[in-house]
Amino acid sequence: MMPKQTVDLVIYAAHVIPVAPRDVVLHDTAVVIHDTRIVALLPRSEAQERYVGVQEQHLDRHIVLPGLINLHTHAPMTLFRGFGDDKVLLDWLAEDIRPMEKEFVSPEFVRAGMTHAVAEMIRSGTTCFNNMYFFPDEICGVLESTGMRGAVGQGIMDSASPYGSGPEDFLTKAEPNLKKYAPGCHDLITVTMAPHSPYTVGEQTLLKVDALVKKYGARIHIHLHETEAECKDSEQLNRASMCCHKSDQKLRPLANFKRLGLLSERLVCAHMTHLTDEEIDDVARAGAHVVHCPSSNLKLASGIARVTEMLHRGVNVTIGTDGAASNNSLDMLGEMKLAALLAKAESRQSTSVSAAEALQMATLNGARALGLEHEIGSIEVGKRADIIAVECDSIEMLPVYNAVSHVVYVAGREHVSDVWINGKQVLRSHQLTTVDEAQVKSDVHEWRERICKYQKELKAKQ
Amino acid sequence: MMPKQTVDLVIYAAHVIPVAPRDVVLHDTAVVIHDTRIVALLPRSEAQERYVGVQEQHLDRHIVLPGLINLHTHAPMTLFRGFGDDKVLLDWLAEDIRPMEKEFVSPEFVRAGMTHAVAEMIRSGTTCFNNMYFFPDEICGVLESTGMRGAVGQGIMDSASPYGSGPEDFLTKAEPNLKKYAPGCHDLITVTMAPHSPYTVGEQTLLKVDALVKKYGARIHIHLHETEAECKDSEQLNRASMCCHKSDQKLRPLANFKRLGLLSERLVCAHMTHLTDEEIDDVARAGAHVVHCPSSNLKLASGIARVTEMLHRGVNVTIGTDGAASNNSLDMLGEMKLAALLAKAESRQSTSVSAAEALQMATLNGARALGLEHEIGSIEVGKRADIIAVECDSIEMLPVYNAVSHVVYVAGREHVSDVWINGKQVLRSHQLTTVDEAQVKSDVHEWRERICKYQKELKAKQ
Repeated sequence: MMPKQTVDLVIYAAHVIPVAPRDVVLHDTAVVIHDTRIVALLPRSEAQERYVGVQEQHLDRHIVLPGLINLHTHAPMTLFRGFGDDKVLLDWLAEDIRPMEKEFVSPEFVRAGMTHAVAEMIRSGTTCFNNMYFFPDEICGVLESTGMRGAVGQGIMDSASPYGSGPEDFLTKAEPNLKKYAPGCHDLITVTMAPHSPYTVGEQTLLKVDALVKKYGARIHIHLHETEAECKDSEQLNRASMCCHKSDQKLRPLANFKRLGLLSERLVCAHMTHLTDEEIDDVARAGAHVVHCPSSNLKLASGIARVTEMLHRGVNVTIGTDGAASNNSLDMLGEMKLAALLAKAESRQSTSVSAAEALQMATLNGARALGLEHEIGSIEVGKRADIIAVECDSIEMLPVYNAVSHVVYVAGREHVSDVWINGKQVLRSHQLTTVDEAQVKSDVHEWRERICKYQKELKAKQ
Repeated sequence: MMPKQTVDLVIYAAHVIPVAPRDVVLHDTAVVIHDTRIVALLPRSEAQERYVGVQEQHLDRHIVLPGLINLHTHAPMTLFRGFGDDKVLLDWLAEDIRPMEKEFVSPEFVRAGMTHAVAEMIRSGTTCFNNMYFFPDEICGVLESTGMRGAVGQGIMDSASPYGSGPEDFLTKAEPNLKKYAPGCHDLITVTMAPHSPYTVGEQTLLKVDALVKKYGARIHIHLHETEAECKDSEQLNRASMCCHKSDQKLRPLANFKRLGLLSERLVCAHMTHLTDEEIDDVARAGAHVVHCPSSNLKLASGIARVTEMLHRGVNVTIGTDGAASNNSLDMLGEMKLAALLAKAESRQSTSVSAAEALQMATLNGARALGLEHEIGSIEVGKRADIIAVECDSIEMLPVYNAVSHVVYVAGREHVSDVWINGKQVLRSHQLTTVDEAQVKSDVHEWRERICKYQKELKAKQ
């Protein structure tokens, strides 16, 4: 008999959904983890013969699956959760969010909000997120200290922000991070360039961004075709600027991106609620990635993305929560359910976006969009151990006929009990191991007091 | 100084949302309850001077609000939760649900499923539900024993069901219940007549149903305009049947109901995803009630109800989960959030269906549809004490800027900590007081085993 191999961790689970291959459920299975990676996935009895774990965890009432990957968020905005709901987007930005961001967004604010967001994401089964906000160094610091995985967007705008004076300043600040966190350089952190949108960042800046992204093997993370108005305004803008040569040409943002050479596999486009068939084909051909944000798109009345058609035409569609100010949670399980439901109504086919497809969008497709499909997104030998466990013996979860369908249509964030990122346990029986929950709550309370006080002062002045 | 009045219960809460008046939040407030009813709603300090409770509960981290009212469900179908997802409606009914119902639906099945559903509903803040299923006596028994409030539908079809041989049998069985549970006769239970739909119940039966409903002051609870196909098929049917007198007339189900005198304030219509402006006006004028079931309508690709227009034209719109087999939960908080979000995209206005409107739909509008608006649906003096508490100090809920918005857009079922129905506490710090949770789980496991075994046998035969 062979001697048993000692490994860091063996997780024994009632059900395992590896995601790749799709729509498979393994029962009574062990996930073997050593040195941050999955080294085996095999039946319980075989695992017991071959491995002994320094740690062994028995999840007999659980479904184990890859961690969820949130492909579009502004994580520190948890501190503005529910601030100014039920308003028109532009009023909300002008009256609520912008004045508050101008007053409050600082390294301290970003650290507090980011830590809060990490706590919320881990507790709800998210193990990696694609962020767009200011002060990336503070965000990297929080990821280091909490063991969270993230693609940290270097925010770029043509105007000033609390983080910098303008595009040249943002680009200058971004390059050292692109270098430091280039693919393969850090276990947890990668970096994206995050120009806000085509209507706040001009072509010259976008071309510089893409040059940097090419140089460092990174991604561009941008809001694109979020609203009908954005597309119409762009057509008008392009018509005006090109009237001397092609007066009849109307360019929507995506077409303009194509013209500029920006539409490529380096591009991760958030929202994309307004796309023609031809545009969908363009995105698919270019290998660009789409982030579907169903809650945010509904809440801000942006529209309903044509996910079924996108998947049918070969687009890599992923899922994002957007910021907590327009959702109002960072809950990827909820978002995944909504993505599966909404696609059925939008396509008028109850067979559209099955549970297995939605789960793949929220995991493996997200990994692919970030260029991390060889590292995360599924439970496969060789990948990093980003793994979550969902309890399935509550009143709300019983009975379970199909684990995949249950994770998508039934499970809530409250059923996520255990989470590992890069092989390290960051949630154990619902308890955070790397974040001081009491401290987070106390910090959030303090920021809330300051924000409410300032809001009162502003109102008094009006 | 006046002596203090002794009452059954005083709830001291950080925030109270009474629902009526709309969009009001009372802080540091007491709800005083005696003999099943709310006898006062007043500031904490005044309550402390005037009342002493046999029980006093301090909910200092909570939002207190009226219990949610689920206006359309087939509650015992929790036992089929997630059974056959991602299928076409008719295939799902023919291949999955109907064969299983034929084999299993019995008094024992209904008792087990109903108890399971009551546990799920109470745990997620629902204090009253409008049901459509078989074996109403078993359902009434469960409501009696668990202290749950419900409007128990007497299922009516033109064909046989596990509960009876046909329409006459169903009508005969229904009348004693209509009498026994007529308005005002029972603290918790009322009865509705629940003919399944216009395509499974003919005009003659529907007219008899309405006569009984008139006689006993009850309601009709029916699926109506759930799908486009239902409306189109009806037009064809009506054209055929009326070809001898009015060959050019096409009648959709609602128009036919109007013609028959069935469209009245006695009618509670589930789904209504396909309505013209004129039809909405007809519903509003008649004072009939609409149950919006957003998850079910998305999942089965039925369509998206025009809720904004309905509210604008004066229709009483309520919210329902539908059965757990097509949702897959009985979670009214989730349904309320989805109703608010979906209305914004459907109407292309981010100001449509505010949080306060969605909350009213899920409470007071539901009470009104059941003819119980003087008894439940809001925290007002004189009403029955159907009250829930939502914890607001978790990572996911913080920070709270607006309690109404937070209950709708942020809170999950897991934040419901305490529930009272008719003045009796049925959930205390997340623990059910009238349902044996372990027994429910064990019963559900047993039914699942039987159902899976039968499914395997069926497949083996094919």
